[in-house]
Amino acid sequence: MKAAILGYGTVGGGVADVLYENKEQIAVRAGEAIEVKYILDIREFPGDRFESLITHDFEQIANDEEVKIVCETMGGLKPAYDFTKRLLESGKSVCTSNKELVAAHGPELIRIAKEHNCNFLFEASVGGGIPIIRPLLSCLTADRIDEIAGILNGTTNYMLTKMDKEGCDYADVLKEAQEKGYAERNPEADVEGYDACRKIAILASLNYKKTVNYEQIYTEGITAISTADFAYAAKCGKNIKLIGMCKEIGEKKYAMVAPFLIGDDNPLYGVNDVFNGIAVHGNMVDKVMFYGRGAGKLPTASAVVSDVVEAAKNIGKASEIVWDDEKITLDDKNELTFAYLVRVSGFEKDSDYKTVFEGAKYVGNNTAEDEFAFVTEAMTEGDFLAKFAALANAKKFVRVMM
Amino acid sequence: MKAAILGYGTVGGGVADVLYENKEQIAVRAGEAIEVKYILDIREFPGDRFESLITHDFEQIANDEEVKIVCETMGGLKPAYDFTKRLLESGKSVCTSNKELVAAHGPELIRIAKEHNCNFLFEASVGGGIPIIRPLLSCLTADRIDEIAGILNGTTNYMLTKMDKEGCDYADVLKEAQEKGYAERNPEADVEGYDACRKIAILASLNYKKTVNYEQIYTEGITAISTADFAYAAKCGKNIKLIGMCKEIGEKKYAMVAPFLIGDDNPLYGVNDVFNGIAVHGNMVDKVMFYGRGAGKLPTASAVVSDVVEAAKNIGKASEIVWDDEKITLDDKNELTFAYLVRVSGFEKDSDYKTVFEGAKYVGNNTAEDEFAFVTEAMTEGDFLAKFAALANAKKFVRVMM
Repeated sequence: MKAAILGYGTVGGGVADVLYENKEQIAVRAGEAIEVKYILDIREFPGDRFESLITHDFEQIANDEEVKIVCETMGGLKPAYDFTKRLLESGKSVCTSNKELVAAHGPELIRIAKEHNCNFLFEASVGGGIPIIRPLLSCLTADRIDEIAGILNGTTNYMLTKMDKEGCDYADVLKEAQEKGYAERNPEADVEGYDACRKIAILASLNYKKTVNYEQIYTEGITAISTADFAYAAKCGKNIKLIGMCKEIGEKKYAMVAPFLIGDDNPLYGVNDVFNGIAVHGNMVDKVMFYGRGAGKLPTASAVVSDVVEAAKNIGKASEIVWDDEKITLDDKNELTFAYLVRVSGFEKDSDYKTVFEGAKYVGNNTAEDEFAFVTEAMTEGDFLAKFAALANAKKFVRVMM
Repeated sequence: MKAAILGYGTVGGGVADVLYENKEQIAVRAGEAIEVKYILDIREFPGDRFESLITHDFEQIANDEEVKIVCETMGGLKPAYDFTKRLLESGKSVCTSNKELVAAHGPELIRIAKEHNCNFLFEASVGGGIPIIRPLLSCLTADRIDEIAGILNGTTNYMLTKMDKEGCDYADVLKEAQEKGYAERNPEADVEGYDACRKIAILASLNYKKTVNYEQIYTEGITAISTADFAYAAKCGKNIKLIGMCKEIGEKKYAMVAPFLIGDDNPLYGVNDVFNGIAVHGNMVDKVMFYGRGAGKLPTASAVVSDVVEAAKNIGKASEIVWDDEKITLDDKNELTFAYLVRVSGFEKDSDYKTVFEGAKYVGNNTAEDEFAFVTEAMTEGDFLAKFAALANAKKFVRVMM
């Protein structure tokens, strides 16, 4: 069976490597050998071991009847969207690592694949190498999944882990992440939570079988998190993680992205550095968690190639993924219940915090910043925000995962 | 579609509950409604909501053409083995939570199922509710899996967590686990590691596609682990977990079950109480870990029912599970490399431990037990055992996971 790769960057290069290095195992699992016939890229790669496969002409791939499976590893929407659509329309399965493409056009591309008896698969678009989409759809089939909460962005998790364990400043740790190549020069997509937002939108859509528009998801990044927040969190026996979550309560559906204090009773607590972890709660299985490398050349390529195997086993037969175009209206996140770490200027004795927040627990003070902190009882976000606004000298808050 | 349940104990009762409570979701995923027609048990259940489904006659199930899927939740080999064989021979798929049955007769039952175009599925036999068998076989298909290491027994993990966090004695914590119903009156299967051994035998067999005989796996339980071991482990920043592992190095294959010191850089470190965690290392994806409830009524039933859904989607079509009768000869575990925590009588200054174990690191002493402890450098188990035997006053050792 012949395959092609669109984009010979990090992930595309990894896909070529995985298909080549593990070809025997992959042939056994796919039922036949899978060989890369073309790699599309605008650049030349003189001396590269796959140099002879490089083409600059998309039409060569689109028009080659031998090519049954194409790996889209270009990223971005243009021209990935047009290319993917064209390939699916010609009956070729597409396996992608491109979360932007999936979050923006998932339902349409799944529909086109079904119409042409081929597959649009995207295991690598969430959680890098971690099997999460297939387990969610094919393994946890006995459960009603009422919550998914995950550390979905490796860059910010690396930064938060550094801040937690080494007490580094946000600015320093961002600089280091950029030097190491974990963060982009423009780090917005990671640190503002946009990347995590697209990923939780994909998981939520697959779970609800309808479209959760990522633009509707309340998204807060980590740019406001400081070492002082970590110091208070540590006093509570917790650390801080950027969490993308979706939650169903009765008929109501919620999704949000924000930094949360997390305790060591939560399996996400120990997910450090560039690793990702995705906790899924089912009404029967309780909590399960999937952990692994959420990014990186070979782990991400491993997930793309697992989709290639799946596509190869199902030539002529579209997958059962249900993801309808119909938009879900998310319910107001102010109805959700959390506890809150609150920082207040001045001394606790001069503050009326216990009057405003009954049952709040004092955490500690920080004379350098002339402030103290407390943790509230569990309450709805709406109630909390009203009280927070009413509290004199309130500086900031971070949510605490229940 | 009609199903039956063999054995109305904890798991069987859970299967009936899951199929009933989540029937809408399950019907969507399976493609049609699944209804329990019979529950086989020798007992009566007056007043039970499924009382009318109880039968004492296995033949009624075996001879009912309407019944396409049977859940075997009796446990043990007799009569589960004969019943399962008989059902598969009549073309009914069997979904089981019975690790003994799978470890002892897996390849034969898979073969019989294939001969009769039905399925023998056993997701619940390892890791309770955690999806592990299907992810291993259907998701991590791009990788050569070279290591699986898991906390596979919830009872011993509960006990070890108590000893670690609360400093409880082994005897006390065993008594408590028995009172809570986590441990049997005869706790041998759990505390001697036999249960973990069967489970790693199943995972190793599926990974190697041949039979790893559980009787060949070196198995050490937790009965010799004491609070003093935990105290030394804590000084190294580690805790102690009972690990079932299989490992492939080149052409050589190893498997063993033993307690290990584990550091917080290992994702299994945070797997506490009755939870299980299974870390899988692939040559491309690196390490992924699956976490969840390794036992319990509803989580285990969730896994059985996910197999029922799989069986329902594949009526008349046998699964692709490859598990050959051919026995694998495991290689000598003394070739494996670990570090070791060693406890020695007397004072470190009177001991020649640094001569025998070059590069060993002193951990601490325990005057109450008139002893001290050190950790060795990494070395093969064979080398270690020879040196340990040569060290004067050596008392005991615990392996350290690398």
